[in-house]
Amino acid sequence: MGELSVSSAAFSAVPIHKPVKKQIQFVEDKQEFSRFPTKAGRRSLSRSISQSSTDSYSSAASYTDSSDDETSPRDKTQLNSKGTSDFCVKNIKQAEFGRREIEIAEQDMSALISLRKRAQGEKPLAGAKIVGCTHITAQTAVLIETLVALGAQCRWTACNIYSTQNEVAAALSEIGVAVFAWKGESEDDFWWCIDKCVNMEGWQPNMILDDGGDLTHWVYKKYPNVFKKIRGIVEESVTGVHRLYQLSKAGKLCVPAMNVNDSVTKQKFDNLYCCRESILDGLKRTTDVMFGGKQVVVCGYGEVGKGCTAALKAMGSIVYVTEIDPICALQACMDGFRVVKLNEVIRQVDVIITCTGNKNVVTRDQLDRMKNGSIVCNMGHSNTEIDVASLRTPELTWERVRSQVDHVIWPDGKRVILLAEGRLLNLSCSTVPTFVLSITATTQALALIELYNAPEGRYKQDVYLLPKKMGDASVVIYTPSPTRNRGLMAAFTQN
Amino acid sequence: MGELSVSSAAFSAVPIHKPVKKQIQFVEDKQEFSRFPTKAGRRSLSRSISQSSTDSYSSAASYTDSSDDETSPRDKTQLNSKGTSDFCVKNIKQAEFGRREIEIAEQDMSALISLRKRAQGEKPLAGAKIVGCTHITAQTAVLIETLVALGAQCRWTACNIYSTQNEVAAALSEIGVAVFAWKGESEDDFWWCIDKCVNMEGWQPNMILDDGGDLTHWVYKKYPNVFKKIRGIVEESVTGVHRLYQLSKAGKLCVPAMNVNDSVTKQKFDNLYCCRESILDGLKRTTDVMFGGKQVVVCGYGEVGKGCTAALKAMGSIVYVTEIDPICALQACMDGFRVVKLNEVIRQVDVIITCTGNKNVVTRDQLDRMKNGSIVCNMGHSNTEIDVASLRTPELTWERVRSQVDHVIWPDGKRVILLAEGRLLNLSCSTVPTFVLSITATTQALALIELYNAPEGRYKQDVYLLPKKMGDASVVIYTPSPTRNRGLMAAFTQN
Amino acid sequence: MGELSVSSAAFSAVPIHKPVKKQIQFVEDKQEFSRFPTKAGRRSLSRSISQSSTDSYSSAASYTDSSDDETSPRDKTQLNSKGTSDFCVKNIKQAEFGRREIEIAEQDMSALISLRKRAQGEKPLAGAKIVGCTHITAQTAVLIETLVALGAQCRWTACNIYSTQNEVAAALSEIGVAVFAWKGESEDDFWWCIDKCVNMEGWQPNMILDDGGDLTHWVYKKYPNVFKKIRGIVEESVTGVHRLYQLSKAGKLCVPAMNVNDSVTKQKFDNLYCCRESILDGLKRTTDVMFGGKQVVVCGYGEVGKGCTAALKAMGSIVYVTEIDPICALQACMDGFRVVKLNEVIRQVDVIITCTGNKNVVTRDQLDRMKNGSIVCNMGHSNTEIDVASLRTPELTWERVRSQVDHVIWPDGKRVILLAEGRLLNLSCSTVPTFVLSITATTQALALIELYNAPEGRYKQDVYLLPKKMGDASVVIYTPSPTRNRGLMAAFTQN
Amino acid sequence: MGELSVSSAAFSAVPIHKPVKKQIQFVEDKQEFSRFPTKAGRRSLSRSISQSSTDSYSSAASYTDSSDDETSPRDKTQLNSKGTSDFCVKNIKQAEFGRREIEIAEQDMSALISLRKRAQGEKPLAGAKIVGCTHITAQTAVLIETLVALGAQCRWTACNIYSTQNEVAAALSEIGVAVFAWKGESEDDFWWCIDKCVNMEGWQPNMILDDGGDLTHWVYKKYPNVFKKIRGIVEESVTGVHRLYQLSKAGKLCVPAMNVNDSVTKQKFDNLYCCRESILDGLKRTTDVMFGGKQVVVCGYGEVGKGCTAALKAMGSIVYVTEIDPICALQACMDGFRVVKLNEVIRQVDVIITCTGNKNVVTRDQLDRMKNGSIVCNMGHSNTEIDVASLRTPELTWERVRSQVDHVIWPDGKRVILLAEGRLLNLSCSTVPTFVLSITATTQALALIELYNAPEGRYKQDVYLLPKKMGDASVVIYTPSPTRNRGLMAAFTQN
Repeated sequence: MGELSVSSAAFSAVPIHKPVKKQIQFVEDKQEFSRFPTKAGRRSLSRSISQSSTDSYSSAASYTDSSDDETSPRDKTQLNSKGTSDFCVKNIKQAEFGRREIEIAEQDMSALISLRKRAQGEKPLAGAKIVGCTHITAQTAVLIETLVALGAQCRWTACNIYSTQNEVAAALSEIGVAVFAWKGESEDDFWWCIDKCVNMEGWQPNMILDDGGDLTHWVYKKYPNVFKKIRGIVEESVTGVHRLYQLSKAGKLCVPAMNVNDSVTKQKFDNLYCCRESILDGLKRTTDVMFGGKQVVVCGYGEVGKGCTAALKAMGSIVYVTEIDPICALQACMDGFRVVKLNEVIRQVDVIITCTGNKNVVTRDQLDRMKNGSIVCNMGHSNTEIDVASLRTPELTWERVRSQVDHVIWPDGKRVILLAEGRLLNLSCSTVPTFVLSITATTQALALIELYNAPEGRYKQDVYLLPKKMGDASVVIYTPSPTRNRGLMAAFTQN
Repeated sequence: MGELSVSSAAFSAVPIHKPVKKQIQFVEDKQEFSRFPTKAGRRSLSRSISQSSTDSYSSAASYTDSSDDETSPRDKTQLNSKGTSDFCVKNIKQAEFGRREIEIAEQDMSALISLRKRAQGEKPLAGAKIVGCTHITAQTAVLIETLVALGAQCRWTACNIYSTQNEVAAALSEIGVAVFAWKGESEDDFWWCIDKCVNMEGWQPNMILDDGGDLTHWVYKKYPNVFKKIRGIVEESVTGVHRLYQLSKAGKLCVPAMNVNDSVTKQKFDNLYCCRESILDGLKRTTDVMFGGKQVVVCGYGEVGKGCTAALKAMGSIVYVTEIDPICALQACMDGFRVVKLNEVIRQVDVIITCTGNKNVVTRDQLDRMKNGSIVCNMGHSNTEIDVASLRTPELTWERVRSQVDHVIWPDGKRVILLAEGRLLNLSCSTVPTFVLSITATTQALALIELYNAPEGRYKQDVYLLPKKMGDASVVIYTPSPTRNRGLMAAFTQN
Repeated sequence: MGELSVSSAAFSAVPIHKPVKKQIQFVEDKQEFSRFPTKAGRRSLSRSISQSSTDSYSSAASYTDSSDDETSPRDKTQLNSKGTSDFCVKNIKQAEFGRREIEIAEQDMSALISLRKRAQGEKPLAGAKIVGCTHITAQTAVLIETLVALGAQCRWTACNIYSTQNEVAAALSEIGVAVFAWKGESEDDFWWCIDKCVNMEGWQPNMILDDGGDLTHWVYKKYPNVFKKIRGIVEESVTGVHRLYQLSKAGKLCVPAMNVNDSVTKQKFDNLYCCRESILDGLKRTTDVMFGGKQVVVCGYGEVGKGCTAALKAMGSIVYVTEIDPICALQACMDGFRVVKLNEVIRQVDVIITCTGNKNVVTRDQLDRMKNGSIVCNMGHSNTEIDVASLRTPELTWERVRSQVDHVIWPDGKRVILLAEGRLLNLSCSTVPTFVLSITATTQALALIELYNAPEGRYKQDVYLLPKKMGDASVVIYTPSPTRNRGLMAAFTQN
Repeated sequence: MGELSVSSAAFSAVPIHKPVKKQIQFVEDKQEFSRFPTKAGRRSLSRSISQSSTDSYSSAASYTDSSDDETSPRDKTQLNSKGTSDFCVKNIKQAEFGRREIEIAEQDMSALISLRKRAQGEKPLAGAKIVGCTHITAQTAVLIETLVALGAQCRWTACNIYSTQNEVAAALSEIGVAVFAWKGESEDDFWWCIDKCVNMEGWQPNMILDDGGDLTHWVYKKYPNVFKKIRGIVEESVTGVHRLYQLSKAGKLCVPAMNVNDSVTKQKFDNLYCCRESILDGLKRTTDVMFGGKQVVVCGYGEVGKGCTAALKAMGSIVYVTEIDPICALQACMDGFRVVKLNEVIRQVDVIITCTGNKNVVTRDQLDRMKNGSIVCNMGHSNTEIDVASLRTPELTWERVRSQVDHVIWPDGKRVILLAEGRLLNLSCSTVPTFVLSITATTQALALIELYNAPEGRYKQDVYLLPKKMGDASVVIYTPSPTRNRGLMAAFTQN
C-alpha cells in the first residue's frame, strides 16, 4: 500500500465538528502531510485528535493497556469463552470491562434501544451480512449489538488506528461479533484488519457501513466482485460521502449509497447543541477558568458560534462576536451580542474562541496584543484558524503546563494560554455526549434497514439522503428518550 | 367590479405574520362584516385588523379624525402650502401632525436614512417615475421621502382601505408627493385612487412598487401600454408575489419583477424577532397578565413559536410546546421545553398560544376543559387556529370586556379570555416595530435601485429574489444602525 | 387644612416602585401643579401618575365618564338596587361595568379567592367593622369582597383623588359596601369622604386598613376615642408606615399596627418581578421600540436594575450597567453585564434607564451627548434621577408627541425621547399586574385576620411585621395559583 | 494526641460549599467517623474530597509523585538552592513544576496581584510574622507570596493531610518560605508540622491565619504565651469560626479574630456563582451526559439551587424544583420553574440534584422508583441528603465504573448512577475556579492587613466581620480584574 500515507497532519483536512474522524489518507491528500514535519513521530501521533475525542470513554482501558504485554494481536491466538477465535483484539480478557462501558453507553442511547425493541420481532435485518468500518467505541458497540438483535451478522474493523477502545472490542468479540481492531494499529495492521473483515471464506457481505470510505475503497480495489451482492453502502463521514459523490460523478458507483452525514438533525447536534456544551466543558477541563464576568470574543456566528455564545452568555460571560456575513451578523446583533472587529476588543478580552471555518482568523499580530493570561482556542475548522505556526519563533517560549494546555510566553513575561495547539477544542479537550452519538448511530441503523429492505429499483446507483419520514420507524431517530420525554413521542403520533 | 380576478382565495393565501395586510374584501368575505350584526357599523369596521396594526402610530390621528367633517375627500378641493392640488387626502391641514409622526419613525429607520445619505450624491433614482401602492404610514413616508431624495418622482396610493394614517398622507402631500389615500375608503374610492396615481396626463411611470398586487393588476387591465416603459415591479406581499409567479408561469409577465418578500432577513424579522417581542406586548396590552410563574403552552415550534417561547421563558413562565414535526419537536426539547400533547396540559395551563399555521389546533372540546380565567390567543395563521366558531353557541355568553378582549362564559361561570377573536394577536393587539418595517422598506428601496439601474438584459421577464450582496449598498439593509452598533458596519467591510 | 401635619416631606419619602401612590398635595407641593403653567388645568391633572397607573383597568370607565354630567356626587342622591343610599359614588348605574372589571381581576387573584374559600366557613372576621382607605380599583374590590365574605362589615374611601375607578366604586356600592369615592375629588371632597366613612352613627370601626396614613391621621385628629375600640391598624404604604413608626417612637401609637409594606415577598414583587415585565411594557407602549440589538445602559443594579437588565438581555438588547456599590457591581459583572461609567457609553446607547434611587444620575451634560433618537427614562426613585429641569431651557424645544412621550429637540435637530417627563415609567406608562396586587391584598387580608383574632397581649402598641408563617393560612399569600401550579401548594405542605 | 481521630468520614461535618476543607476532627466529632467502617483504609483515603477538589491543579504532581521514593519527608534533609533547610516538603526538586502551577494560578487572581502592587510600596505587613495553616495549593501560594511582598515573614503548614500540592510546597520552600507539609501526612505528621511552624527558636508569630482552627487550637494547648504577641487571628472556615465563637462565648478568646467566612461576597461566590458552573462541570466530567432535553429535578432553591437551575435551564434541560420554604418556592415559580413534590416527578427525571442542606431528601423508596440510567448527586450539605446508606444492602449491586461514579444495580437490572457516593459533587468532581479562591484569598490578606494595622482598642477580644468598605483597599476584593472589566474599577471610584 505504498500509495498510502498516514500522518497526524491529515487532520487538517477533516470536516468541521465531525466528532469521529477518519485518518487514513490517500494519495491526493499527501501534500498536506508534510506541512508540519517537525511535529511528526510518536508524540504527535499519540496526541491525535481521534484519540482525544474518545479519551474519556476509555479511561478504564488506559490502565489495563499499560499493563498489557507488547505482543501484536496479530501474533496472538485468543479464544472467547464460547471457544471462537474469529476476531483479533488486544486482549479478550478485557471483555468484562468493555461490557460495563457498553452498559453505561446504553443508558443514554435510548433511541437505539427503542429501535432494538420495536424491530426485534420482525427482524428487519434477517439475512443481512454487514461489514463495518467505524470507530470502535462503547457507542458503536450499542449500534452493532442492535444490528445483531435485528437479525444481522456483522464483521467489524476500525476506521482509525488510535480510536479503538480495546476492552469494547473484546466485549464484542466475546459475544461473537468478528472484530478486528486494536488501539495503536500500524498502517499495515489497519489494512490487514479491513481485509480480514471482508475476505472471509464462506461469508460474503451484502451491506457496507463505512466511516471515511476506506473499507469501500478496499472493496473497490481488491474485491470488486463483492459489489454484485451488496445492496447498499451507508457512509457517515464528510470525507467518505465526498468520495462517494466523486464515484457517482465518474459513473463508477455500482450500488446505492446513503449519505447519513448531511441530515438536519446531525448538523444541529454536531454543531449547535454539542458545541453549546463542549465549549464550557473544554475550557473548564483545561483551564478551570470561571466563566462569570469574563470577556469573551467568539469569531464566527454560524451554528458553532451560536452554541458557544449562548452557553457563555448563560454562564455570565460578556460576549462579543465577529462576523463578516451580514445576515449572521444581524442575527448576532438581534441575539444581544455586540458585533465587533477583533481588533477593537483584542486588548481587553479574556478568551478568544474561533469558529469561522476560515484560516488565520487570529493572527500573530493580534496574539501580540492579547493581554497577559488570556486564553485562545479553536472550535471551528481544523487547526488553521489560529495562526499557531507564527508562534513557533525563537523569541517566544512554549511551556506545556498540562495536557492540551500550552503557555506561550512573550519576552516581557506575558503569557497567552493556547489550548490543544489550536486544534479543535471540542474534540481535543471535551467528549462527545453519548446522546449525540446515539443520533448518528440510529440514523445509520435506519439507513441500513431502509437500503436492505427497499424494493428493487427504489434506489439507483446513486447517493441518497435518508428520507425525513421513513415510515413509522424514523421518528425514533428524533426521540431523545421515550421515557424521558414522554410527550415528545406522543407529539409525533399526534396526527 | 366584475373584471377583477381578485378573490377570497387570494386572501386566504395571505402570509403568516405579514405585518401589513391587504384589505379589499370581495363578495364572499362581505359576510365577515355582517357576521356579528350587533357589532357592525362604523365602530366594527374601525376595529379591523389593519387599523389595529397601525393604531399606535396614529394615536394623534384618532382625535383629529373624530373632529373631521364627513365630506369625502374626493369632493373637496385642497391646496398644500405651495399651492399644489395634485393629491387627495382627508385633510391637508393635518400635515404638521404627520410630519411629527414621520420624524418619530425616522429615529428607528437608520438603515434607510443611511441609504439616503450614501446615495444622495449619485441620485441613483434620477429620472425614476415610481407609482406606489402600499400602506400609508409614517414608516412608508420615510421610504417615499428616501426615494425622492435619491431622485425619483413618486405618486402613491394605499393598498388597504383602513390603514392609511391621514396625517401622514397630508404631510407627504404637503411636500409635493402626489398621494391619493385616506382612512376608510370605499371600494370604489380604492380603485379611483389607484387610477389617479397611474392615469396622469404627461406623466408615465417607469417603476412600480406594489404591496398585494392590486396596482399591478389595475395597470394590466387598464393601461397595458404603460408596461412598455416600466423597467420593473417590486412586490412585497405574499399575495402579490403569488400573483406575479402565476403571471410568469402563464407567460404574461412582461417586465422583470423583484420578490422582496422571501428574503431570509425578512422572514427572521417578521417571525422570530418580531414575535419574540409582540407576544409579550400583545398579551400585556390586552390582559395586563403577569408572565412570571404562569403556565403557557405554545402550539407549534416554527420561527414564530421559537420567538414566543423564548420570550415567555425569559419572563419566568413555565412553557410547554406541542409540535408534530419531529425535527422541530427535537429542537424544542433541546431548547429546554417539555414537548407535550395539548390534552396533557389543557387543564392546567394559564395561556394557550397557537402558532402552527394549521386549522382547529384548539378545538371546542379543549376549550371546554380549559380552566377558569385562562387566556387563549393566536399568533399563527389567519384566524383559523382556534375554533372560534364553535364558541358561538347559545349556551356560552360572550362579554366584550375591552377592545380585542372577550370573555367567553360557560354555564358554570367559567371564563375563557379570548383575544382578538382568534385573529393574529401580533397584528391586532401589538405594533410592528419601526425597525422591522425599516428592514422591509430598505429592501424595497434597494430593489428599486437595482431594477432601475440594471444593464439591459440582466433581468428577464421573470420574478427575481434580491441578490444577497448587491454591491456595497446592500449591507445597509442589514445594519440595525450604523451609530448604534458601530462594530457591525465594520464587520461587513472586514474583508 | 392648617391642622394637618402632612407635608411634602412625607411625600418625598414615597417609596420606590410603590405601585399605588398617595396624591393629596399640600401647600408646598402645590407649586408642582403650577410648575408648567401651560400644561396646568384639568388635562395636567388627569395626567397624574396614579391615574396612569390604573389607566388600563379603567378603559371602560373613561368613556362612561365622558358622558357623565358634571354634578358633584356629593350633590346627588343615589340609590342602589336594594334601595340603600349609604354611599357616595359618581354614578351607581355604572355598577354593571364595574362588576365586569372585578370579575376580570378575580381571574388572576386566586390567592385571595382561595383565602375566601378556605376561611369562609369559619368567618374569621365575623364582627369586624373595617374602615378602609385605599385606591379603589377592581383589585381592591376583590379584597373588600373577600373581607365581607369572611364576615366583616366595611366602609371604604379612596386614598387618592384621581385613582378611583368609578364603575368599581359603583359596583361595590351596589352590593351594599359603603363606598365614598370618585375620580377627580377635590381636596375638600377627599376629607369629606374619609369623614363619612368614620363618622357614622351607630357604627364604630374596630379595624383600620390604611394606605398612606391619611385615614389614621384623620381618626387621630377628629375621633381619638374611636381608638378605644380599634384592635389594630394595617398599613400598606411606605409613607403610612413611616408615620406609624414616628407615632410609635413618640409614644403616641395607641393600638397595634401591622406593617405589610416590608415583607420580602412584596419587595421582590414590586421591584424585581414587576419591573422585569414593566420595563418592556412601558417602553413598548410609549415608543414601540424594538429591543433586539439595541444598546441599553441601566443605571443601578439593585432589585429594579436586576429586573430591567434581565428582561432586556432576554429580548436581545446589549446591556451595560453603571453601579457604584462594589457588591452590586460585582453581581452585575458575574451576571454578564459590562459595568461601565455612564460617560463611557453615553454616545452610543439607544436607551438609558435609571434605577439608582439617587438624584441627577443623568445630567444635562450627558443628555447633550446622547445621540439622535435615543430614549431616556426612569424606573427608580421619584422624578429626580434624570435632571429634567435642566432640559427646560429656551434653546431646547419640547414636542409632546404622544401621551407620556416628549421629544426634546436640540438646536442641531437632535431629538432625545423623554418618557413620562422623568417620572416612574412603570407607574406612568405600564400597569401593575393584578397578580402583584393580589400579593399585597392577600397580605392585607391576613394581617387583618391576625390582628383581629390575636389573643389579648400578643401585640402591644407597636408596629409589627407579618409573621412569615402565620399558621396554615399564610402560605396562601405565596401561592400564585393553587390550580396553576399545583406542585407549589403541595410543596408548602410537604413537611 | 490520642484524643484525635482522622477519617475520611469527617467530611460529613464540613460546611456547605466551602471549597476548602479541614479534616482533623476532635473528640466530639468522633462518632461520625465510624459510620461507614467498611470504606476506610487506603482507597477511601485516596478518594478524599479534598484531594479531589484539587486534583486538576496537581495533574503535574501526580506523575512526579508516582516516581517518588517512599521515604518520609521528616527523615530527609533537603536544601533549597539558596542552601536553606528550614522547611519540610516531599521533594524540593519539584519546585520548578510548582512555580509553573503558581504562575497559572496568578493569571486569574488579579485582585491579589493588584493588591500586591498597590500595597507593595507601603509594605503594610512589614514586621508581621504570620503563621498559617491552610490548604497548600497554587492559589494559597499566590496569597503567601503576596503577604511576603507586603512585608510579612511567613511559616506555613497544611490544614489537611491530603490536599497539599507537593510541588507547590517545594516552590514556596525554594523561595524561602518555611513550609511544613506534604500530601499524605499521617496524623502524627500533621501535628508535627504545625508544631514546627509555631515552635521556632528566635521567631515568634504575631498573626495567625487559620483554616479549620487546628493551628489556633494547638497554640492554645501548647504555647498559650504566644498569644501575648498575637495581634489577631484570621479564620476562614465554618468550623474554625464556630470554634472561635465558642471560645468567645466562654470568655476564653484572648485576641481579636476576624471571621472571613461570612462575607456576602464569599457566600455568593461559594454558592450561587460557583455552583452555577460546577454543576455542569461535575456532571460532565463524571458522566459526559448531554444536558439538552434532559429532565432534572433540583431539590432546594437556595443560592446553590438557584445556581444549579439557572445553569441547567440555560443548557436546555427541563428543570423542576422542590422547595418547602414558601418564599423560595415562589421565587422558583417566578423564575419559571415548576415547583413540585419529588414524588410527582421521580419516575420521569433523568437527574436528581440535592441542595437543601437537609437529611434524607432522597429516600431509598424514591431511589427505588427512579428510572433506569438516571443520575443522582448532591450539591448541598455534607453527604446526608441522599440516603446512600440505604443503598448498601445485599440485593443491590454496586459497580464502580469510574472514579466518583458508581452504578447501583437493582435486581431487575435497573441502574442508578450515583456520583461521589452522595458527597458534594462540586468538591468531589469539579474544581473551584481560581477566581473564586482569589476572592477568599484577597479577603484573608485584607483581614490580616486590617488587624495588623488597627489602632489599639479598635478590635476587642471578639470575633469580627470584615468591614464592607475598608478604606481604599477593600474595593480590590470585589474587582474580578482591573484590566478585564475596566469599567468596574471605574465604577467604584465614580463618586
